Amino acid sequence: MLKVALLGAGRIGQVHARNIAAHAESALVAVADVQLEAAQKLAAEYGANVLSVEQALADPAIDAVLIATSTDTHADLIALATKAGKAVLCEKPVDLALERALACQKATAGDGQPIMIGFNRRFDPNFATLKRAFDAGEIGKGELLSVTSFDPAPPPVSYIKVSGGLFRDMMIHDFDIVCWIFGSVPSRVMAVGSALVDPAIGAAGDVDTAVVTLSWDDGRIAVIKNSRRAAYGYDQRMELLGAEGLLAAKNVLENTVEKTTRAGHVSAKPEHFFLERYAKAYEAEWSSFVNTVLRGDALPVTLQDGINALALADAATLSAETGKPVILKGTAFEVAG
Amino acid sequence: MLKVALLGAGRIGQVHARNIAAHAESALVAVADVQLEAAQKLAAEYGANVLSVEQALADPAIDAVLIATSTDTHADLIALATKAGKAVLCEKPVDLALERALACQKATAGDGQPIMIGFNRRFDPNFATLKRAFDAGEIGKGELLSVTSFDPAPPPVSYIKVSGGLFRDMMIHDFDIVCWIFGSVPSRVMAVGSALVDPAIGAAGDVDTAVVTLSWDDGRIAVIKNSRRAAYGYDQRMELLGAEGLLAAKNVLENTVEKTTRAGHVSAKPEHFFLERYAKAYEAEWSSFVNTVLRGDALPVTLQDGINALALADAATLSAETGKPVILKGTAFEVAG
Amino acid sequence: MLKVALLGAGRIGQVHARNIAAHAESALVAVADVQLEAAQKLAAEYGANVLSVEQALADPAIDAVLIATSTDTHADLIALATKAGKAVLCEKPVDLALERALACQKATAGDGQPIMIGFNRRFDPNFATLKRAFDAGEIGKGELLSVTSFDPAPPPVSYIKVSGGLFRDMMIHDFDIVCWIFGSVPSRVMAVGSALVDPAIGAAGDVDTAVVTLSWDDGRIAVIKNSRRAAYGYDQRMELLGAEGLLAAKNVLENTVEKTTRAGHVSAKPEHFFLERYAKAYEAEWSSFVNTVLRGDALPVTLQDGINALALADAATLSAETGKPVILKGTAFEVAG
Amino acid sequence: MLKVALLGAGRIGQVHARNIAAHAESALVAVADVQLEAAQKLAAEYGANVLSVEQALADPAIDAVLIATSTDTHADLIALATKAGKAVLCEKPVDLALERALACQKATAGDGQPIMIGFNRRFDPNFATLKRAFDAGEIGKGELLSVTSFDPAPPPVSYIKVSGGLFRDMMIHDFDIVCWIFGSVPSRVMAVGSALVDPAIGAAGDVDTAVVTLSWDDGRIAVIKNSRRAAYGYDQRMELLGAEGLLAAKNVLENTVEKTTRAGHVSAKPEHFFLERYAKAYEAEWSSFVNTVLRGDALPVTLQDGINALALADAATLSAETGKPVILKGTAFEVAG
Repeated sequence: MLKVALLGAGRIGQVHARNIAAHAESALVAVADVQLEAAQKLAAEYGANVLSVEQALADPAIDAVLIATSTDTHADLIALATKAGKAVLCEKPVDLALERALACQKATAGDGQPIMIGFNRRFDPNFATLKRAFDAGEIGKGELLSVTSFDPAPPPVSYIKVSGGLFRDMMIHDFDIVCWIFGSVPSRVMAVGSALVDPAIGAAGDVDTAVVTLSWDDGRIAVIKNSRRAAYGYDQRMELLGAEGLLAAKNVLENTVEKTTRAGHVSAKPEHFFLERYAKAYEAEWSSFVNTVLRGDALPVTLQDGINALALADAATLSAETGKPVILKGTAFEVAG
Repeated sequence: MLKVALLGAGRIGQVHARNIAAHAESALVAVADVQLEAAQKLAAEYGANVLSVEQALADPAIDAVLIATSTDTHADLIALATKAGKAVLCEKPVDLALERALACQKATAGDGQPIMIGFNRRFDPNFATLKRAFDAGEIGKGELLSVTSFDPAPPPVSYIKVSGGLFRDMMIHDFDIVCWIFGSVPSRVMAVGSALVDPAIGAAGDVDTAVVTLSWDDGRIAVIKNSRRAAYGYDQRMELLGAEGLLAAKNVLENTVEKTTRAGHVSAKPEHFFLERYAKAYEAEWSSFVNTVLRGDALPVTLQDGINALALADAATLSAETGKPVILKGTAFEVAG
Repeated sequence: MLKVALLGAGRIGQVHARNIAAHAESALVAVADVQLEAAQKLAAEYGANVLSVEQALADPAIDAVLIATSTDTHADLIALATKAGKAVLCEKPVDLALERALACQKATAGDGQPIMIGFNRRFDPNFATLKRAFDAGEIGKGELLSVTSFDPAPPPVSYIKVSGGLFRDMMIHDFDIVCWIFGSVPSRVMAVGSALVDPAIGAAGDVDTAVVTLSWDDGRIAVIKNSRRAAYGYDQRMELLGAEGLLAAKNVLENTVEKTTRAGHVSAKPEHFFLERYAKAYEAEWSSFVNTVLRGDALPVTLQDGINALALADAATLSAETGKPVILKGTAFEVAG
Repeated sequence: MLKVALLGAGRIGQVHARNIAAHAESALVAVADVQLEAAQKLAAEYGANVLSVEQALADPAIDAVLIATSTDTHADLIALATKAGKAVLCEKPVDLALERALACQKATAGDGQPIMIGFNRRFDPNFATLKRAFDAGEIGKGELLSVTSFDPAPPPVSYIKVSGGLFRDMMIHDFDIVCWIFGSVPSRVMAVGSALVDPAIGAAGDVDTAVVTLSWDDGRIAVIKNSRRAAYGYDQRMELLGAEGLLAAKNVLENTVEKTTRAGHVSAKPEHFFLERYAKAYEAEWSSFVNTVLRGDALPVTLQDGINALALADAATLSAETGKPVILKGTAFEVAG
């Protein structure tokens, strides 16, 4: 039985709390949050204790921590936790600053604790089915990958301003997905972005609509499309052209009911946002973490994966700003030419 | 908090146990089963006590019982439970014999306890969405309802022999669905059945493939198609033609991945069987029962509904055996002409 | 080059004229119609002559006739044409009266001319693909066939009154389809019909909504659903459950455009009515007839097929009127019991 | 009745011949081809004369020419035809060299004859439906357009060598489509291409897999994906995200039959290649041209459209070669920075 402390009792922390409690091999024993009331409410719901972060990390009965605090605390908490001998599952991103993420990697290098980054989409049953089919050779060699990822509506501009920008805040998921599908990091990034949804987003120096083309030295190409607004909800699809066919993962719909009238044939919209769309993914993510800690399964998402996605986000930001391609080597990058 | 005793720790009992335990307003406090070991295992999983049925019914701390025992015990347990002042959710069918179900109804008439029959399909989010759209008038007056309900594979012939036959064992769900959708019981039943899947089923006096046409005095028609075997899994669909359009509820698929190769375009099969397909329905069913008991919501499925479905099953059995239509008045019926 | 006279220049005659003229191996040389103006207009369009029926049949340069006149003239014209040594493609039905169709069969028996009945749906590329897949064994032995066939809107009651009724006028297509798919004629017919769409249809002694269940001695079952009105257009589907799977032919849609907005996901309606839906079927039907006449290919639809469908329509009419099953032996039938 | 000479009796010329002959207001009166035999065969099929190009242009009875000869002859033939007072429908592209296309434009400027370029995809009923819905405001302001365009298999390398390269030969259709949908020409082009399908294509200096991102000064973005090989056939889709929703045009499938077995749910592949996929588009294109000439309808595709697409193809080629974005002003362009 894995005894877990949850750091962060916000919206996503609550999702994790439910999964930790529901899993047959894990127990939610402690909750910490700077907003004490939130911690108390969540702890009460699951019969857990309210602790400070320090108390949780000092408690030898706690095996693992799930970090769902604000982004700027992630890197420090990861390091503190591994120093304290806890296994770590940390929400994405590692940090908004690549250098801090790299520093975290260095700081935790010898601690011998598993550090998993919460790129939940890898655990979506649909994307995972696509990945398995691809890895099994069902469409031959991969050539051209397309990811569509639209949010239902933009966040407030106040959030945008501290978000790190679309590439670091939103597209970081998609950067991770393309690296995961193709099994390696691209070497070239070309980004185009516009503020079409809300001029205030543009005024804040960010974009809300973007296309990034990634390419690998062996010629493979990936395209990511992001928009902060799809009027119909959360649009989460991917498709991969291979030498012998195409694999596509379509949206998960709210229901299977179809209505045909004079007005046409109407079917359901996609699940509205990430809490619904990725409910099963969060469950599978937690289950995978438990297997890693209890059984020594390979880490399904590493700290390096989190760093790679961040480097790509930085590179895309630079490309969009300069209007030029950016070349990556490892996590270093520069404008081409 | 509704304190619940589960009677019956078999496959479907386990589904209910999980939902009772997971619901924020109910707790699984006791499990009873003639197979003590099964009761112990399930009780241990949820921290419940193992009790005999008598103990459970005698325990004043228990508010409600969920009856998931073998069919022949349902009618008696319903009556014992309501006499003991417990609210009841009983798995379908009430009994294989209509007269015993009617006797149960008479016996429990004055007990003042809610008795809900577990026709889980009414709680399927897709069917419920269809029903709501229909009731909201989205396709006008209902005219022609079609229900497709195929199992993945036939049960063993030993089970068939004690099942009451396809109409009482399998199609009873569909009889309930058509009454629920149309809001009333049909007055005429024409059934055709064959043993096409397994000759041993025919030798046992049953059928494995059947079509039943139901009609109402106002001219509405429903058709139910059943097969004990769909090689591709559990096929659960319905469609309703109304004056202004068509509403259809399609299958729930295993995933949203589609593969296109030289061989064609391949997408996922339906969820394989009822435990997967109706997982959400069982949750919603339980939640609905809790609301009835704790808040006095209207019973969503009554004992009368269970009796109606049974009368239709009997009528269909008679129609298939005689090759003639059967006329229903209330729960009485006779061969036409 | 097959030289063809078209008898009947109405709506369906015009469809045939275009296909006869467009086929590389046939020529439309003459058009006859009791409405001279219609014949003249159509003949002018294709450079054909206007002839009387008698002139056309007497013209030795004419190889074949396509009979698209009113139903009551079909049987006589078939016999006159084969006596005159012409190959015949006659629109369905052979006649509204089974005995006249049988008399026609007797009268033409020795004439040695191909007589093909225009059951156009057999030539629909989708239904033909389903049939080929089934015959190739792709789903094993056929067990349960369902045909959905809804018209967009009922014809005027004046037409209904002379139509022979829904079973002879509309469902006759579906009777032919089920015989074609299963390769034989069923032995038992149970029909239910209602006048739900238009009370005037009921007042005229007909129904507008009907379900017919057909069964074969070996246990196979087919269900046909008809409605005179689907608000969304022409609904033409079938599905066949076999021992190893399901084959379904879906509707042909007006286009492939899909729109997703707050209101849902909207796609196109089915092709509106038979002229659009079966345009390719009419072409393929004609091409098949040409191959029969010029190359001796087997007749794809025989006069016997036309008679079988008519016998089933009569049987269904009797079943709906008496409320009882009807048993068929060849083309003879009687109420069961 | 529009009297038409067809210049070029090859594969695509034969498609046009059929449509010219089948149209009620046009007649194919002459066919010219450098391969006399091809011209004779095609002319015989439609009762047309075989003429030389010079004879056809000199014949005052001829109203229009359809130019379906090899690409290098297009520009000259357009000019000769308009000088001779003929209306012109010319297959795409105008030329492989932008300067020759511009010279053709200058040369024909005062001739007063309609010159239509054969971008057939604009006439595809599905794409046209999408365009109409977009123009009608059904999804609000357009933001992000995606075009997927994959061929079933690459042409021979010998063809690749004289094709002008993927961007001029294949993606030129897509450049036209994005300009048509958005109603203007983008100002910025970023192209990435690889030779993944066939190394010989790379050795010939071309690519077979490419992604091009186009952007407009007002922030709109379009992405085009091309591959010379989709194992499953011709993949022709587009989708457009607008402020209020998404419009998508899916592939046209070979049939509507679906098979579900243990192996999954199998439906049809897309129509295999352009002759099938765009059969209706070629018909509508011709019909549109006839309406322009006979009724003075606005030209649906102008010579300027042909030049715009060519300029974009040149810009994309330059971008792919230099690895840098290319900026367009009118038909002039240069590498950014």
